Amino acid sequence: MSDIASGDLGPWLSPEDLALVRRKVPILYIDALPVRVDGRGELEEVGLLLRGTEAGTISRALVSGRVLFHETVREALERHLEKDLGPMALPRIPLSPLPFAVGEYFPTPGSPFYDPRQHAVSLAYVVPVVGDCRPSHDTLELTWLTPAEALTPEVLGDMSEGHASLLRQALAHVGRLR
Amino acid sequence: MSDIASGDLGPWLSPEDLALVRRKVPILYIDALPVRVDGRGELEEVGLLLRGTEAGTISRALVSGRVLFHETVREALERHLEKDLGPMALPRIPLSPLPFAVGEYFPTPGSPFYDPRQHAVSLAYVVPVVGDCRPSHDTLELTWLTPAEALTPEVLGDMSEGHASLLRQALAHVGRLR
Amino acid sequence: MSDIASGDLGPWLSPEDLALVRRKVPILYIDALPVRVDGRGELEEVGLLLRGTEAGTISRALVSGRVLFHETVREALERHLEKDLGPMALPRIPLSPLPFAVGEYFPTPGSPFYDPRQHAVSLAYVVPVVGDCRPSHDTLELTWLTPAEALTPEVLGDMSEGHASLLRQALAHVGRLR
Amino acid sequence: MSDIASGDLGPWLSPEDLALVRRKVPILYIDALPVRVDGRGELEEVGLLLRGTEAGTISRALVSGRVLFHETVREALERHLEKDLGPMALPRIPLSPLPFAVGEYFPTPGSPFYDPRQHAVSLAYVVPVVGDCRPSHDTLELTWLTPAEALTPEVLGDMSEGHASLLRQALAHVGRLR
Repeated sequence: MSDIASGDLGPWLSPEDLALVRRKVPILYIDALPVRVDGRGELEEVGLLLRGTEAGTISRALVSGRVLFHETVREALERHLEKDLGPMALPRIPLSPLPFAVGEYFPTPGSPFYDPRQHAVSLAYVVPVVGDCRPSHDTLELTWLTPAEALTPEVLGDMSEGHASLLRQALAHVGRLR
Repeated sequence: MSDIASGDLGPWLSPEDLALVRRKVPILYIDALPVRVDGRGELEEVGLLLRGTEAGTISRALVSGRVLFHETVREALERHLEKDLGPMALPRIPLSPLPFAVGEYFPTPGSPFYDPRQHAVSLAYVVPVVGDCRPSHDTLELTWLTPAEALTPEVLGDMSEGHASLLRQALAHVGRLR
Repeated sequence: MSDIASGDLGPWLSPEDLALVRRKVPILYIDALPVRVDGRGELEEVGLLLRGTEAGTISRALVSGRVLFHETVREALERHLEKDLGPMALPRIPLSPLPFAVGEYFPTPGSPFYDPRQHAVSLAYVVPVVGDCRPSHDTLELTWLTPAEALTPEVLGDMSEGHASLLRQALAHVGRLR
Repeated sequence: MSDIASGDLGPWLSPEDLALVRRKVPILYIDALPVRVDGRGELEEVGLLLRGTEAGTISRALVSGRVLFHETVREALERHLEKDLGPMALPRIPLSPLPFAVGEYFPTPGSPFYDPRQHAVSLAYVVPVVGDCRPSHDTLELTWLTPAEALTPEVLGDMSEGHASLLRQALAHVGRLR
């Protein structure tokens, strides 16, 4: 999650307040893996965001972002999917609020799931999208990959350890991790 | 599941073979609760089948039926939903093969989940349908009810104990059992 | 969750900081339903806390509390179970970090899940305890009830709407909501 | 599952009846991954059975077997765990009947999950064992491996494709697939 733009933290949190909050409590996030399904509803491809990092390199990531004050988890999913995939992506937010995984990220170097900015806890979902995806924002590109392509070391190596793990867990959850 | 027509057991099982199989092994079923979702994907209504029983009364039920030899669970869901809701119902079969509940029915009088015909194990799913539902078959009617309406004693009392339990579990799973 | 003592918020949050944080971000909680299992591991009883509320009345509740900065969800479960059930309760924290329910509480009057203090998101777990439970703290008593006893209107009426819903969802999850 | 001894199919199924049933309906199985947990309940090791195959080679497998007529899924888990791990293994059968995966095996050469004997559907569970494991039966050995050891190509290569997939899914489910 280290590649999340800090711009999405809401207008009512000043930089000072945000810095304070991030030193005081775990911050709640959502992660979403967009997927394409075929006419019968079976998973065909997963969507990964290609974005630039602060270090100037390229990384792949799930859709990810903070849950704002007074916002439901469902609304946060909708907002971040629209922000990253554009307004015509037509995501099908899951009926059940149960995540397929709970990610825990700590600002301690050496943590398996490391986030230098904060202690974050993320609820992760698989979300079919049926419309037109047009990433804008700070996202460079959205690439669609088959499960087999997504599970290659090259692709996994472009992801943070946390997101690579969530991708594997997502494919396990839908019965597509062979 | 005592209200399942025996006609859906497949042409390659003679009555004699079927009778034998039902005395020898647990029979695998699927149960599906059709639901309507609003434009944002939130559950609005659940669909319950009204059908005639052998005893001449009326009962409410989920979509339910056997998984055939060589058929995947997904294919069984599609087949039974089409059989009970018609070919234009456009069900969205869940991506994940994980059921929200596992039902176990025994032919022993007094079992909490009782099926006089067999020992059956059922995998249960919530399935959004977005098309036109036109029940045919031996189904009399499909009624759409809000979660609150479906959870009234009158409605639950029209269901077998097993299906009433599955309905409650389905609403719990999607966070709508208050 | 309105019956959670504010004392468990950690020494490194001053009252001023806490008040600030609670107006700025959703606060992450855990909820746990302690259960007794028989020799074969089947659920026998659920444990509900009887505690005094600020209003001077008595209420029933699940074990509930905040996840602290730098604390894992598992550690938060252990800490709150020990705090409420005593050090000899010997809880068996679930292997999987996946909750059976996600609770969302809002400080808006009229919300189905209402918490006047904050916007809270809670991950809920069923936790078998096999040792001696000796509630101390601000808890008055721990009562063990069969699923049937716990689901009576009298017992549910002593719980907040959120916790009553979580209890039903927990029993649905373990296949004991009939 | 091709390494399951046919001896566990129950005395009330003659070879002729069994052969008939296996050509007529899907056969219900359970799969169980035994695990060791530490004092705090965190997964330390997974247990894999080493057994001889009909072809004279050695293979690794999960605990696996058929659900018998009139037997609950829980009873089938208990019976197969005792059969493969001995009577002192003290397995902790999960409270919830929900599997972490549903395996579908077909007798069609080329199926991703192939079982030459039958169409089988398996409900898969992770089961902590806290006692002494003494495999007897046709099992040669039970080996305990850390998640990292179990996920090496050497170990996965000793398993059927189906069981290797279930192992990965199990570790994903408990948050230990990195």
